[in-house]
Amino acid sequence: MQLETITSISTPNGEGAIGIVRLSGIDALAIADVLYRGKKQLAEVDSHTINYGHIVDPTTDEVIEEVMVAVMRAPRTYTREDIVEINCHGGIHTINRVLQLTLNHGARLAEPGEFTKRAFLNGRIDLSQAESVMDFIRAKTTQASKVAAGQMQGRLKSYIEDLRQRILNILAQVEVNIDYPEYDDVEEATTAFLLDEAKKVLVDIDDLLKDASQGRILREGLPTAIVGKPNVGKSSLLNYLVQDNKAIVTEIAGTTRDILEEYVNVGGIPLKLIDTAGIRDTDDIVEKIGVERSRAAIGSAALILYVMNYNDTLSTDDIEILESLARDDRQVIIVLNKTDLEQNMDLEALQSYGMPIVETSILHEAGLKQLEDEIAQLFFSGTVENADSTYVSNNRHIHLLEQSRSAIGDAIRSAEMDVPIDIVQIDLVKTWELLGEVIGEDVSEQLIDQLFSQFCLGK
Amino acid sequence: MQLETITSISTPNGEGAIGIVRLSGIDALAIADVLYRGKKQLAEVDSHTINYGHIVDPTTDEVIEEVMVAVMRAPRTYTREDIVEINCHGGIHTINRVLQLTLNHGARLAEPGEFTKRAFLNGRIDLSQAESVMDFIRAKTTQASKVAAGQMQGRLKSYIEDLRQRILNILAQVEVNIDYPEYDDVEEATTAFLLDEAKKVLVDIDDLLKDASQGRILREGLPTAIVGKPNVGKSSLLNYLVQDNKAIVTEIAGTTRDILEEYVNVGGIPLKLIDTAGIRDTDDIVEKIGVERSRAAIGSAALILYVMNYNDTLSTDDIEILESLARDDRQVIIVLNKTDLEQNMDLEALQSYGMPIVETSILHEAGLKQLEDEIAQLFFSGTVENADSTYVSNNRHIHLLEQSRSAIGDAIRSAEMDVPIDIVQIDLVKTWELLGEVIGEDVSEQLIDQLFSQFCLGK
Repeated sequence: MQLETITSISTPNGEGAIGIVRLSGIDALAIADVLYRGKKQLAEVDSHTINYGHIVDPTTDEVIEEVMVAVMRAPRTYTREDIVEINCHGGIHTINRVLQLTLNHGARLAEPGEFTKRAFLNGRIDLSQAESVMDFIRAKTTQASKVAAGQMQGRLKSYIEDLRQRILNILAQVEVNIDYPEYDDVEEATTAFLLDEAKKVLVDIDDLLKDASQGRILREGLPTAIVGKPNVGKSSLLNYLVQDNKAIVTEIAGTTRDILEEYVNVGGIPLKLIDTAGIRDTDDIVEKIGVERSRAAIGSAALILYVMNYNDTLSTDDIEILESLARDDRQVIIVLNKTDLEQNMDLEALQSYGMPIVETSILHEAGLKQLEDEIAQLFFSGTVENADSTYVSNNRHIHLLEQSRSAIGDAIRSAEMDVPIDIVQIDLVKTWELLGEVIGEDVSEQLIDQLFSQFCLGK
Repeated sequence: MQLETITSISTPNGEGAIGIVRLSGIDALAIADVLYRGKKQLAEVDSHTINYGHIVDPTTDEVIEEVMVAVMRAPRTYTREDIVEINCHGGIHTINRVLQLTLNHGARLAEPGEFTKRAFLNGRIDLSQAESVMDFIRAKTTQASKVAAGQMQGRLKSYIEDLRQRILNILAQVEVNIDYPEYDDVEEATTAFLLDEAKKVLVDIDDLLKDASQGRILREGLPTAIVGKPNVGKSSLLNYLVQDNKAIVTEIAGTTRDILEEYVNVGGIPLKLIDTAGIRDTDDIVEKIGVERSRAAIGSAALILYVMNYNDTLSTDDIEILESLARDDRQVIIVLNKTDLEQNMDLEALQSYGMPIVETSILHEAGLKQLEDEIAQLFFSGTVENADSTYVSNNRHIHLLEQSRSAIGDAIRSAEMDVPIDIVQIDLVKTWELLGEVIGEDVSEQLIDQLFSQFCLGK
């Protein structure tokens, strides 16, 4: 496939020591050679070498930058096309000038994700691998990046390919049956084989979907609210979570610089903290924060850390909030703080809400490991160490897998009801096609464009 | 010189397509080889090659990243030491893990500017070249980056070296005189030669200093305030300046992310706009903004754009502000706006303040080119195109050059007053030493540490 040569700044936007302008395509070397002055023309250097030289504006011969230029020839490259990476000194202004020069001399500005899209279009990676590239870049914890790395290396791809192969095997058997309908025992054997094999495929799809919520948490963070009355220790808990380099403050692409989301890494699980500004702003204002405010803070949280004071009695406010939380289907952990003080809290009454209770003294850093364990228990059945397994975390994948599950379920039910085998066949083919979409077989160009547009520039 | 191997993330902090961990030092290859899994050990690959592979945690064999590793062996490198650049996929979390692994296996975290400091300590560049690296990275306009690029390429260095050589020539002549004091005519000839040559050096130092303010403006931006009564067109002017990609909003290193400075590029001159928030906030509030507020807005401005309405008469407020501005030694340009309306302004009275007046209709984009020209006229005698000349822009350099000028001035005065030649000699040596400090000869370690600490990480 012959595509235009694209160009982009591939390093993050900002002041740094190194900034890279990356070209990919059939003319990458020719365009770079117009701008490059070095010992040799880039067209003459070996592949996978780094070459010292200068970038000049060829219309004026003005020297723009002192550069190191990496030359990587197709097909051993990220895109499987010729790639040239111009390593600049890292000034925003100059990198933009170098980019502009590549545009002036025949390259087109790359769209977000277009380099990775080419890797996909040129057959180096499948769609699930391509999609994991941005997950990998945006990973917030080690576990999340392990999951993405696994997918990048093609783990989901081989899993899906295995399922599709098994469906093909069933379909082959069905073909035999259709070709020799006169043999009754063939039909019986086929149905038995089909049911047996299709049910195994269903179990495997189910398995994949079962852990999907965990995958999604690893990928996107677990929306968490810290809630409680004033002076119970909410901001101490927040500070504890944020300290020790646990905090991962991330600027979300596409939003303005003012909107930040605060993540903390708790035992490998990225908690996405909600309304931390609220906690910081209001905690030392001694006022009665009632049910109203707690409700607002809870917002879209999937996990609520309800902080209470061991030294307090159970108030009517507490009861009202806890009862309303109990009606929700959100996970709540009661953090019973200040165990260094005298106990006034009615533990039995508290236990009646059926929520896990962790006793802490944040002041003395006591009970915090238990809190981390409790969170892991609620969302990962106690461990996130099995990040080696194939987690599906991408909404598009989850949606396709759910459709596949439903299609193969239809096939199984039909077979059980002795529906003619060529009808069952249709559902099996549909399952096979839906699974194919996960890895990018037969997906529409529009979908591909939309997927890659979510990438960052230069990738 | 054998120095520890240092490591740092050399790309800007943020989400991007490529992130680089850079190692420099005698163990750079050995440390990278502990972490790298590829076709060959890095120790065995050729210099200036890029090598595909993976970074693993050697304690667990877990694959952390898929990488391209650039190997550049001493001395043909930025630092003149062995350099390894690990190109990662650009995720913040993973890059930090790779950095951590290099730290765990023998590298030390580089201080800001330490790579460039090594280039200086290892003799690849002089101090003025090293200092220009950050100027180059932070350059806000093409002219500013040209100046920095010139200095990086050693333009100031050769200028200074030439001056020092000429002082050495004078000193050599003086030595002859001291060695043969018995010859009267030698003394006379020496004094004449000394005066002649020293005066030429003085003129050259003066030349360098003359343009220093321009260099400083190119480097740091020209602090500019837009001032005037409500509804004269301040925010229209601001919007005009900021539109058309002229705006260069820059995050200043070391400050919090909330503090931004707004720069606009006006004919190659970076204007650093002061109190633009004030203009945006208050312009449509119709209130009497008096002398007080204008004073505050002017702040530390070196250029004041005083916007007035062609359709208004000259008010007592205007008079008061203009008179107080006239007493300042700041440059003021009167922007007489709304020339599309009827003239009520007393132009003669306005001219009496001796400030340049530019008539504009910002609404119709009229007169704005003249305004740009006027700014260039005031600060660059009409042109900034001579950015090829050697601009001194660095405060340290300016200070040293001023001291050199004063020292050689002393020498000249002494010689003219027939002070014994060995006294004159002392001032000449002092001048020679001061000039040497500009390019980093005989500067203290403390000064070097302080200079490089202003760099960005990884450079």
